[in-house]
Amino acid sequence: MTIPKTGGEQGYLRIATEEAFATPELIDAFRDELASPDVDPGFFSLIGYYLDHPAERPRFIAKALNDLGEGRIADMDARGIDRQILALTAPATNVLRDVDRATMVAETANDRLADAMRQYPDRFSGMAACAPQDAKRAAKEIERAVTRLGMGAVIINSHILGEYLDNPKFSEVLEAAEALDVPIYIHPNTPPPAMIGPMLEAGLDGAIFGFGVETGMHALRMITSGTLDRFPRLQIVIGHMGEALPFWLYRLDFMHQAGVRSGRYEVMKPLKKGTVSDYLRSHFHITCSGMAWEPAIKFTQQAIGEDRVLYAMDYPYQCPVEEVIALDAMDMPLETKRKFFQTNAEKLFHIR
Amino acid sequence: MTIPKTGGEQGYLRIATEEAFATPELIDAFRDELASPDVDPGFFSLIGYYLDHPAERPRFIAKALNDLGEGRIADMDARGIDRQILALTAPATNVLRDVDRATMVAETANDRLADAMRQYPDRFSGMAACAPQDAKRAAKEIERAVTRLGMGAVIINSHILGEYLDNPKFSEVLEAAEALDVPIYIHPNTPPPAMIGPMLEAGLDGAIFGFGVETGMHALRMITSGTLDRFPRLQIVIGHMGEALPFWLYRLDFMHQAGVRSGRYEVMKPLKKGTVSDYLRSHFHITCSGMAWEPAIKFTQQAIGEDRVLYAMDYPYQCPVEEVIALDAMDMPLETKRKFFQTNAEKLFHIR
Repeated sequence: MTIPKTGGEQGYLRIATEEAFATPELIDAFRDELASPDVDPGFFSLIGYYLDHPAERPRFIAKALNDLGEGRIADMDARGIDRQILALTAPATNVLRDVDRATMVAETANDRLADAMRQYPDRFSGMAACAPQDAKRAAKEIERAVTRLGMGAVIINSHILGEYLDNPKFSEVLEAAEALDVPIYIHPNTPPPAMIGPMLEAGLDGAIFGFGVETGMHALRMITSGTLDRFPRLQIVIGHMGEALPFWLYRLDFMHQAGVRSGRYEVMKPLKKGTVSDYLRSHFHITCSGMAWEPAIKFTQQAIGEDRVLYAMDYPYQCPVEEVIALDAMDMPLETKRKFFQTNAEKLFHIR
Repeated sequence: MTIPKTGGEQGYLRIATEEAFATPELIDAFRDELASPDVDPGFFSLIGYYLDHPAERPRFIAKALNDLGEGRIADMDARGIDRQILALTAPATNVLRDVDRATMVAETANDRLADAMRQYPDRFSGMAACAPQDAKRAAKEIERAVTRLGMGAVIINSHILGEYLDNPKFSEVLEAAEALDVPIYIHPNTPPPAMIGPMLEAGLDGAIFGFGVETGMHALRMITSGTLDRFPRLQIVIGHMGEALPFWLYRLDFMHQAGVRSGRYEVMKPLKKGTVSDYLRSHFHITCSGMAWEPAIKFTQQAIGEDRVLYAMDYPYQCPVEEVIALDAMDMPLETKRKFFQTNAEKLFHIR
């Protein structure tokens, strides 16, 4: 096995676009939530596992998340990753019920990430954390993080204490992202209490299944609720090959149109741009985090366009070097591969 | 537009494998459930719509469901459908809390369907309804319906009052299907109360999204719980292009193995045959109901094998003749198309 190298000799740089880190302030806040008697069951299942389980994988992940220095750079070098686009790890602030503390966690995370970006300007880029529970303060922090710290996106870890970004209470967050011309990356969260029951019971609440359900639904709500008609320039990024929405496109379009035509739901009105797929092709970018699989990548490129499909590794949650090697070897024109690994990310996240 | 004809002159018969009907006894039972003060919210959303909404689509569907005679045959002729494999429409008995009544509904439905099959032996085949709430009686009814009425499968409309077929209480149902060598078709249901919250709120509880989540999870539970290791010859059928599981295969395998290896869940032990995809490729057949879309059909054929992918129309819920024309025109070898439209169904459902 030949280890991939950084530097672009294969004709493109590898920019990994959904890479996670943690901060001491976030871990402290997670610990306090974990100890709460009414802790969110999905959060308990997920973060209880990653922080405290003795198995090798969660131990590696807990350690790697907290490293924004040489350890991370070494792991990137060992996998041929030229640049990581970093985001505060899920569910980040979304699960914190103390809004002041959530805001503090976001601000310190942005400052710590900005420090690392200054230290490794050629290796790290970042997404702005915020605490959307207080949308006004979140919008201010997004502005600070983009204009003063150089963040190129906003990270939202799906549902916010059981609520979604199509709720008008979060409008200022969407307004800020649109005005600053940065995309919102909707990263998975475990499903909220009103949804997690049968998944948790079967051990399917996390990345194996619940993540995709939760985040696919969130993305779909942004479309069907008409939210993206209110923010016509807003760009959304979703990982994991679009949380299966590209595969569902035909059925989404058919059933959305059938529902709208018959007036089945008060909350589902006709959309300005037309079909669900029209929105996926104009408002969404999709990364392959967790889905280093050529057939699904090509399917998605054909479904929504090769300018909208990007590489991601999902470090440290899923980072075998074999995946990089497999994606380098995809049967795909070099120009398309360059878009996938490098130039789509440079444009979307304003990497200069 | 040339209307497709029955008779096989294009090189194959068209057997539609997920086609729905209703009976007066089922509609009466639905009405009583709808009137109950603690009606299941997903059922109320779904069946309230199809039985009582004034729009054109639900009116057509309500009428067509109840026709097992000339009207249905005429609709098949107008779409080039040689044979329908009929199943009692979702959620059928699964939502009925009176077990005796649920059993009566299943038995009368099987008798009525058998009458129609005798009247149109070249046009109709059937799946056995049952009321899995009483697994012992359900197993007896399955045996009667298969051995005496000629049914070639069992229909289960996903969750049974919030419970799933991996629950050992339903073992006799699985045993009966395996012993009689007929597959179980897991048809979608709306998500149960413990899961439906954010989907219902957004109008995404039905066929547009919730159906796939509910049924994909059900199929996945059958694998990850080890249920299919207990029934090594049992075959499961799922519609809607596999409820997106083929698209998720890479991530399912990765995260299932990661979870099993670390012992994260008591309910998720190592499986005898290996990976999730090994089970999809040996225990599952997938139909294209609601997904008359060449890219998704080919993707699934490549992911699980062309002997396991079957045509379905989803009459009367989704039955534009344009979909038949589009699938006839797929760029696919005739032999593969014959498997898809005809011979895979003949083998699986024992059509002689």
